[in-house]
Amino acid sequence: MAKQKKQPRPKAEAPKGFRDYFGTEVTERADMLAKIAEVYRTHGFEALETSAIETVEALGKYLPDVDRPNAGVFAWQEEDDGKWLALRYDMTAPLARVAAQYRNDLPTPYRRFTMGPVWRNEKPGPGRFRQFYQCDADTVGAPSVAADAEICGMLSDALEAVGIPRGDYVVRVNNRKVLNGVMEVAGVLDPADPTKFEEERGIVLRAIDKFDKFGEEGVRLLMGEGRLDDSGDFTKGAGLSEAQADTVMGFVNANEAVQRKLSASVGSEPQEADFLRRGAAAQGATPDTSQEQVRESFGSVWNKSVLEHLRELVQGCEAGLEGVDELEQIASLLDAQGYGPDRIVIDPSVVRGLGYYTGPVFEAELTFEITDEKGRPRQFGSVAGGGRYDDLVKRFTGQVVPATGVSIGVDRLLAALRAKGRIGGSAQGPVVVTVMDRDRMAEYMALASTLRGAGLRAEVYLGNPKNFGNQLKYADKRESPVAIIQGSDEAERGVVQIKDLILGAKIAQDATVEEWKSQPAQFEVPTGEMVAKVQEILARYEAE
Amino acid sequence: MAKQKKQPRPKAEAPKGFRDYFGTEVTERADMLAKIAEVYRTHGFEALETSAIETVEALGKYLPDVDRPNAGVFAWQEEDDGKWLALRYDMTAPLARVAAQYRNDLPTPYRRFTMGPVWRNEKPGPGRFRQFYQCDADTVGAPSVAADAEICGMLSDALEAVGIPRGDYVVRVNNRKVLNGVMEVAGVLDPADPTKFEEERGIVLRAIDKFDKFGEEGVRLLMGEGRLDDSGDFTKGAGLSEAQADTVMGFVNANEAVQRKLSASVGSEPQEADFLRRGAAAQGATPDTSQEQVRESFGSVWNKSVLEHLRELVQGCEAGLEGVDELEQIASLLDAQGYGPDRIVIDPSVVRGLGYYTGPVFEAELTFEITDEKGRPRQFGSVAGGGRYDDLVKRFTGQVVPATGVSIGVDRLLAALRAKGRIGGSAQGPVVVTVMDRDRMAEYMALASTLRGAGLRAEVYLGNPKNFGNQLKYADKRESPVAIIQGSDEAERGVVQIKDLILGAKIAQDATVEEWKSQPAQFEVPTGEMVAKVQEILARYEAE
Repeated sequence: MAKQKKQPRPKAEAPKGFRDYFGTEVTERADMLAKIAEVYRTHGFEALETSAIETVEALGKYLPDVDRPNAGVFAWQEEDDGKWLALRYDMTAPLARVAAQYRNDLPTPYRRFTMGPVWRNEKPGPGRFRQFYQCDADTVGAPSVAADAEICGMLSDALEAVGIPRGDYVVRVNNRKVLNGVMEVAGVLDPADPTKFEEERGIVLRAIDKFDKFGEEGVRLLMGEGRLDDSGDFTKGAGLSEAQADTVMGFVNANEAVQRKLSASVGSEPQEADFLRRGAAAQGATPDTSQEQVRESFGSVWNKSVLEHLRELVQGCEAGLEGVDELEQIASLLDAQGYGPDRIVIDPSVVRGLGYYTGPVFEAELTFEITDEKGRPRQFGSVAGGGRYDDLVKRFTGQVVPATGVSIGVDRLLAALRAKGRIGGSAQGPVVVTVMDRDRMAEYMALASTLRGAGLRAEVYLGNPKNFGNQLKYADKRESPVAIIQGSDEAERGVVQIKDLILGAKIAQDATVEEWKSQPAQFEVPTGEMVAKVQEILARYEAE
Repeated sequence: MAKQKKQPRPKAEAPKGFRDYFGTEVTERADMLAKIAEVYRTHGFEALETSAIETVEALGKYLPDVDRPNAGVFAWQEEDDGKWLALRYDMTAPLARVAAQYRNDLPTPYRRFTMGPVWRNEKPGPGRFRQFYQCDADTVGAPSVAADAEICGMLSDALEAVGIPRGDYVVRVNNRKVLNGVMEVAGVLDPADPTKFEEERGIVLRAIDKFDKFGEEGVRLLMGEGRLDDSGDFTKGAGLSEAQADTVMGFVNANEAVQRKLSASVGSEPQEADFLRRGAAAQGATPDTSQEQVRESFGSVWNKSVLEHLRELVQGCEAGLEGVDELEQIASLLDAQGYGPDRIVIDPSVVRGLGYYTGPVFEAELTFEITDEKGRPRQFGSVAGGGRYDDLVKRFTGQVVPATGVSIGVDRLLAALRAKGRIGGSAQGPVVVTVMDRDRMAEYMALASTLRGAGLRAEVYLGNPKNFGNQLKYADKRESPVAIIQGSDEAERGVVQIKDLILGAKIAQDATVEEWKSQPAQFEVPTGEMVAKVQEILARYEAE
């Protein structure tokens, strides 16, 4: 018989740009999502889970990120009716579809939260994946800035709920209307014809959003003739005159201007970019009183000064002044609930790159430093952002439906908490019941069952039990704190051996003989005392 | 200027076969998944989350369900390298890929659980969706039936953890090797050439799996010439002779045979298909003693009798006898941990339709009746299933890696709990703080914030506040138990009005004047007492 041609074996690989998550990576994210969901629910937001797949028609054929118009979605054509389907690229487009589809059944306003993966058909890069989690909360159908203020306060609560202490984050709020006002004053926005200079404004917007990266010089180049980057790539500029750029930069630098003004009045130097937060630290008081003091001495003064400064910048422009008024309302609504500027602050430097925002925009930033992979300290940066967008539902119904919302970058937030050592590291593996005697498997399983009955994680070794060393290597790989050993001799005497694997590893490394004698890593107890003894050991390591 | 041609509006619709999940549908599922995850984790299983997308090469080009070879996946081609990607159709294929890809890093055996949506590119039907949840636990690399026994015990624990009481479910265990033995005895399996009669065996397997649906007559037709269904469609039969079919039916009817045998010895009539469970109920004792009694009087007797009967059926066939031995081991391993036949029972009628099982197979069934949409009582049926499959990883590495696992049908399980009224129904909406005076929004938000501070769900009405009736309609749609009302008059006096909306609705329907007087649905309290008063009302309804 002719030998059949051998089929090549398939490659065991996740597709490019996708990754697998193991153990605590999964459970820690689930814990975080549950905590955020609880905050959202407490604020009256209801869960929504749409399917991963939408019609391309409903999604819209473009990503919201105008920087990369070629960035795409994963899409395919249905066989029966030829319709194009695609994986969602964010949570906002499906919300717009739902708000339109169920408009007669949903309450108005409709507050909803949603969490899950989204997919981007983009070139993968280091640390850039084509599937990642988003965790959004939005209010649809509420025109008032009270809805924006609520989202900001809730974002602050969510960050604290997942373990970012007050002082380690700040929610910054700005208003697109103010920026539009400045554009109007600079002559790159004509209220009579909003489509005029649209391209220029887009360039300016994205330039400002990259202030942190390029600095004032780079932003000015982008607003003017354009910018040549280190790699030789040229980015086209907006072509603004120097006077026009000055006006816009007056807005971008509003923080510094206000700080200069204020530092005289409070008798301190504006050395730090983050005036208020550093101010609080400088007070050196306990967290509570310090916040009070900040709010008293800087907080309302700061917000008042910023608003004053912004009013000057948009003088004579109606929309711009309306924007400043809205910011004032937001600050006062938040203040009434105790969200002082130590948590949420008016900050003209926030613009958010996306084109679709129409009013207040906000961004949550972690203010602590972490050490990057090269050992250099750096600020962690933004972990959440959002704002008001009033046109998304209109695509479906023709009606303008006001909406505002926030998206938390769950994976970044997890990375931040891990970098700070606030999660991870302490997770223990299960207790491993080793197998000395293949015929007594039922007894070993019963021992594991007894341990589980006391709420402990426990498992029986299910590999080939012949080599006991392999069993201990397995326990090591499982990060087990304790192994249970019971040969037929021990079984007859009604005892088990408990092996403290953490202590064992420590002793193997560096214990003195005295330590070894005073606290042996393996000892015998009556089977009835096994649970209590194991709990005692685990409690010891948990306390450490 | 020529008017631009109007673009047609996109349809606001989820794609065919997909649906949206709202509010408690989402949170109840999340709660259930968290409870199952906890059981899995306690058994030493580690979480795994693979991406939704795999290469078609890694997935394999076929669904495991050979009944519908045309049933497909959602797939598309990558633009840059022409590779085909697809959405996962189950959780087992990605596990096989992971087990192969990380074989040097993962512990052996590797216990993992995973939960999330899977996608099937099938024709949608009523109640049949193209995206649904799976919640799987598998052990890879453990050849011993102790691994199968562990999965069965864990499945039983998981069902009880999500709220299915003992007695309302049963895990049935069988072994493919026994069925293969019967096939060998019947002459449709030649141990010297396992590929012979493969098609016939497939037909027999699927016929037996549909015993509940078609009855003995239908199954016999499928094993013989074939079966014509009511719609006129003809399903090809396996072409077995009557004698061959008799041998197979002896296996299918093994339960009844054992019951007949046993009923004489225990002095009871085998009227019910589910002998053991009904037996327990018939004892009429308290749940605990009844289980004990069942186990004592029927349990081990039952298992022993079934095993005896099966041994007779596969007489002289080595593989079949090995299968019976394995079942005996599983029963004894489970018994040692207290999983008696009231929870997990040996049951020859379970075969599982999938072709890839190679050893023990199991299925969890809910044994209570529910009322279907036409008001007829019916058994709820299967909610989970699994078994041993030893060939999946081999595709990638050439090595046979033994594996066993279970998949819980989360959405079916949720439907069962809802049908029994064990979840849902009691969920209350948030407290709604109404807006009497637009200018006092800050105070209303502070009131909601105070309620949240006490752990209550609370929100401010964010729609147009002009029409107060709309606000109450909104509260009604939100299923709010309580509304807070504070006009400027109340604010001045430092009080709020609390409106008990549940009582209000009740009074509006059927209260007497006396009831109305003794417990008014709306009353005034000092603002400082608002939280306590609201808690009192909520506690009253929660207790109901």
